[in-house]
Formats: sequence, structure tokens, C-alpha cells
Amino acid sequence: MSEFRKDPLSDRWVIIAPNRANRPEQFEAEAGQYVPERCPFCAGHEADTPPEVVAYGTNGTPSTGDDWRVRVVPNLYPAVGGAESPLAESDALYQTRPGVGAHEVIVESPDHVISFSQLDDGQAALVLRAYRDRLIELGKDRRLAYGQIFKNSGAAAGASLEHAHSQLIATAVVPTQVQHELAKSQSFHEQQGRCVFCVMLEEELAEGTRIVAESPQFVAFCPFASQFPYETWILPRQHSSRFESTEPGQLAEFAALLKGIVGRVESLRSDPAFNYLIHTAPFDTPPLSHYHWHLEISPRLTKTAGFEWGAGDYINTVAPEQAARKLRITSPQG
Amino acid sequence: MSEFRKDPLSDRWVIIAPNRANRPEQFEAEAGQYVPERCPFCAGHEADTPPEVVAYGTNGTPSTGDDWRVRVVPNLYPAVGGAESPLAESDALYQTRPGVGAHEVIVESPDHVISFSQLDDGQAALVLRAYRDRLIELGKDRRLAYGQIFKNSGAAAGASLEHAHSQLIATAVVPTQVQHELAKSQSFHEQQGRCVFCVMLEEELAEGTRIVAESPQFVAFCPFASQFPYETWILPRQHSSRFESTEPGQLAEFAALLKGIVGRVESLRSDPAFNYLIHTAPFDTPPLSHYHWHLEISPRLTKTAGFEWGAGDYINTVAPEQAARKLRITSPQG
Repeated sequence: MSEFRKDPLSDRWVIIAPNRANRPEQFEAEAGQYVPERCPFCAGHEADTPPEVVAYGTNGTPSTGDDWRVRVVPNLYPAVGGAESPLAESDALYQTRPGVGAHEVIVESPDHVISFSQLDDGQAALVLRAYRDRLIELGKDRRLAYGQIFKNSGAAAGASLEHAHSQLIATAVVPTQVQHELAKSQSFHEQQGRCVFCVMLEEELAEGTRIVAESPQFVAFCPFASQFPYETWILPRQHSSRFESTEPGQLAEFAALLKGIVGRVESLRSDPAFNYLIHTAPFDTPPLSHYHWHLEISPRLTKTAGFEWGAGDYINTVAPEQAARKLRITSPQG
Repeated sequence: MSEFRKDPLSDRWVIIAPNRANRPEQFEAEAGQYVPERCPFCAGHEADTPPEVVAYGTNGTPSTGDDWRVRVVPNLYPAVGGAESPLAESDALYQTRPGVGAHEVIVESPDHVISFSQLDDGQAALVLRAYRDRLIELGKDRRLAYGQIFKNSGAAAGASLEHAHSQLIATAVVPTQVQHELAKSQSFHEQQGRCVFCVMLEEELAEGTRIVAESPQFVAFCPFASQFPYETWILPRQHSSRFESTEPGQLAEFAALLKGIVGRVESLRSDPAFNYLIHTAPFDTPPLSHYHWHLEISPRLTKTAGFEWGAGDYINTVAPEQAARKLRITSPQG
């Protein structure tokens, strides 16, 4: 099983997971995407994955047959999982924890569709419904603290299969980046009496230059200090710390907006690759007045290089104002 | 000119540098390395770069002629630089600073050599001598706080030219990652009364399984919580917070060890790409008992993906013990 190790200089957790090195494309990603003999995510090939965790039928109700529309399966090469009880070890220098957790794959269509932007609206909403349900379900496991939802699309974004899918890694520790956002937003709230994300939304809507798209309940914008070219965040207008609290109707609206943003990002160049991820409050927290869930999407147009790895700071060659302008006038692909 | 913007959620600085988007290979890195009509770093093509900052002749003394062995030039597409005086601006949410700084390229050979590992020992030592001299010189500029030395080798590591070169970006702010290492090492020193890096060296030498190579004054090992497969750090055995304090003889020994490590890393696969970087104390600090300069090198064998970008934590598919064993038995390339 895998092991969590904490770097004493950065406080970052590293999951040492030699099992994942067995993935077929490992270390060959430069040569392009791995194409298996047959796609394990296509309908009819269900036996090529571990048994499903859950599947949704046409009307969104659980399906146990071959009429599934969205299917959640354990990752065949999990980064975490397997242990019964977490036993942490540490000395003055090094800390370790067993790799307790869950690593699941959300298969977004029974057909060999290669992008989320190609799904119809109902299908896209069902994918987000699966995210929400799995977070609620995994949140009941008292050993787990957080569920990281993410999508790797394209080889440059770390995808090893092209069939549209997302992933969920639930861990016994709250990820470093989420801990940092929680601490910073709490300190902002203590000083200013307001949620930093709510203030950001207000300022962005007033300023306007970094807005990409809006819907009744959501706003998409390029953040002021975008780490990557064309990085875009989607936030609900109404304050909410947990993605899992999103109502079905709101999820459908979010799915439609996200589809459009993915399509625009994919239109930026002919061979698009991107990651998106959801930041939400940890499992065991009550509604938080200082934290606000959001989705972050970034196309992978540039390489992270020595300066970034050394400094922990980023060089972004496209000003967010310019990025937002271009994304606003771009017709979504798909 | 470029602008520093601070992300209010991560505290990370982002350098918004639209000028760098003019680099010819921009957004085409996936398609492989950019090959210009003629290499601007080769002897005889000196006019293709901005005028040199400094050049070293055969015996290491400054050269103004065409007999240079190592040449330092301003980056043609700098991430920072140009302003006269830094004026910071901030409101409750957003902070900006002008992109004051220097961005230099260290050309490692007059010949079209594509790796540091192909340099002879004297040439390699001269490259490190240039790093040291430039840090000392830029440190005299009271506007600047830190100099980040790094190397991008290969397209997957963010290099846009193949001729062996390194870079130096000096900034008015101490990079986030370095600030974090300084704070963590100081807190370790307060609690344990010792330098965390000295303790790490001691434990690694006693344990042995993560040691890659040793020389009289340096040790190379894969850190316990390696962020990337085959990540290797080189530390001086004797405590020293500043790379710039390294004596010429020690630099030559360091260069020879580094050459060997680069060669081993390059032997891991046929199309090697890697980054290395030096972490040292900020310009205006006295010798620090809690900080210890070091070099970090990581081959780019895997893609950073959605989990890493979201969690800020890393999945490493090669245990550092296994990585060190493989690097120990690998014959250096070059």
C-alpha cells in the first residue's frame, strides 16, 4: 500500500505510491497518450475495470445493468487505499502515515466521448451529481478528512486514457493547499468580517475586465493573480462552503456553465489539455462563513520550469485581463 | 514591464510577464523543442543576444574578446527587470509590485553542447563560478532580495533552447518557497537547537538507503519525502547558509559531483529532461545557523496533474529508496 510522507521543509505531503508506476503509459507520456487495445471505460467493457462503486441510469437513479450513463469505479492503480486503520509515525524529522483513502474514477459517458464539453446538458449534470454523491458518501467514513475532485484531460495534463473521466482522491489528511486556503480565508474573515471569495466576486463583477461568463447563480472569471495562462475560476454567487450542499437544479446550471468554459479552453489551440479541480470544505466541518467552494480550470499551454519549482512563485505570460477578453470572444468547441 | 501579483488565497506571487509570450516556442512546447535558424548561444553568434553582462576566458578571468568559455547575458524575454524604483500597491484583497529584478542566462560553453554533463571538469566549475559571482554582484543591488539559480534542460522541463545554459532570476521579494524553508528551518532550530539540514544529512548517512553519491565535502541523496521520481538533493557536509560563500576549490568539487548526478539522471531514459535549482539564503542575511544551501535536481518523467494542482500534495510513483538504488548503479551518460 502507499505511504504519506511529510517533507519537513515545505510541510507538503508526498504520497509514495509505487503501485501507480505499473500504469502502462508511465514515463512515456512525452511520446503522447497511451492507447490501450480497447478502452476500459466504454460500455460493454465493464469487466476491464474493478467492480463499480455506483452507476447511474438514464433518469439519474442507480443502475445495476448495462444501461448506465455515468459509472464510478475504483482506480485500478490507486494512489491511496487498502489499510484498515491509520497509524501515524513520526520522529523529530520525518512524519509518515499509511496511505488510507479512496481513489475513484468517474466515467462520464458509456460512449467513447473524449471531452466533457461534448456531453449533453443532462449528462454533464449527472457527472456533477456523481461528484456530489461520492463526496457525501465518502464523508461518512470517519477515517477520511477530504475528497479532492479533479480532471486530467489530455496527455500534457497527466491523463493516461482519453475517454472522458474525472477522479476523486479521498484522504485522511486535509490537502496542504486546502489547509492554506482555509487558514488564509479565516484570517481575512477575522480582519475584514467578510468571506474573501465573496469580496473577490464583488470586486470582479464591479471591475469586469476579468469576467469570462455569468449565469444566474455562478460567475466565471480569470483570477487577478492567475498562476497559469487562461486559468479560470467558477464560484457560486451565493456564499456556500461545501460543494456537496449544491441543490440538483443549481448543479445542472453549474454543469452547463462548466461545459461552456471547458469548450472555450479547448478552443485555445488544436491539441487542448487541461486540468480542473474543486476546492470545498473538509468533510467534518459545519458550514463555514469564511470559506467558499469553487472550481479551478487551467489549460496546460506552458511547462512549469525551474524557476517555479525553486521559487514556488509563477511566471504567467498572459495577463488575466487579456485571457478573459480572449475567452469571452471564443466560441466553445465541442 | 512585468508586474508581481500576490494571490490572496495561497500567498504565492505570480509574475505577470506578457513580454515572455513572444518567445518563439511559446505554446508549442508539446510539439517538441524549438530550433532557431541558428543557435544564439554558440560562439560567433554573440550579436544574437543582448550585450553580455560578463564573460570568462580560459583561465577564469574576465574576457572581452571572442575567446570566452562561459558567458552571462540578459534574457532576451525577461520575466522581470526594467523599473527604477519599486512601488508596491495593495488594497484589502490584492497586492501588486512592479517587476523589478534581473533575468540572466548563463551560457555554459562556446560550443553547441547540449548537456552540463558533457562539459569538462574545469568548464563545469567555471559555470558554478559564474553563478556565485552573479549572486554576489546582484546582491549589491539594494532593491533586490534574492537570486534564484535554475536550469531547464529539455522541452519537458521548460527549456526553449537546447544549447547548455542556466538562468538566474533576481527579485525584490524572497520567493515563497524559500520563505517557507527559512521559516520551517528556523522553527526546527528553535525546537531542536540544530540545523534541520545537518540533522537530515546525519540521518541519511546513518540510514544509507537514500544516498546516491558522496564526495569529501558533499553528499547527494534522494530526500525522504521526494516530490518527484528520482529527485536528488546535493548538500555541503559543512553547515553553510549561502551558496555564494563556497570557495573555488569546493566549487570545483561540487561541479564534478553535480556533473555525475546530471549524467545519471540523463541515463534514466532516452529523452531526458530535468530541472535543477539552488536554494540559498537571501541576499541581505548574515550567516544563518538554521539554513543550509543546497541544490535540488528532478528529472521530468511524469506530469503534474489535477490532484497535485488541487491538493498541493504530490503522488510519487518511485520510492526514494528505490530511486537512490537505481541512481547508484547507473553509469552516468555523457
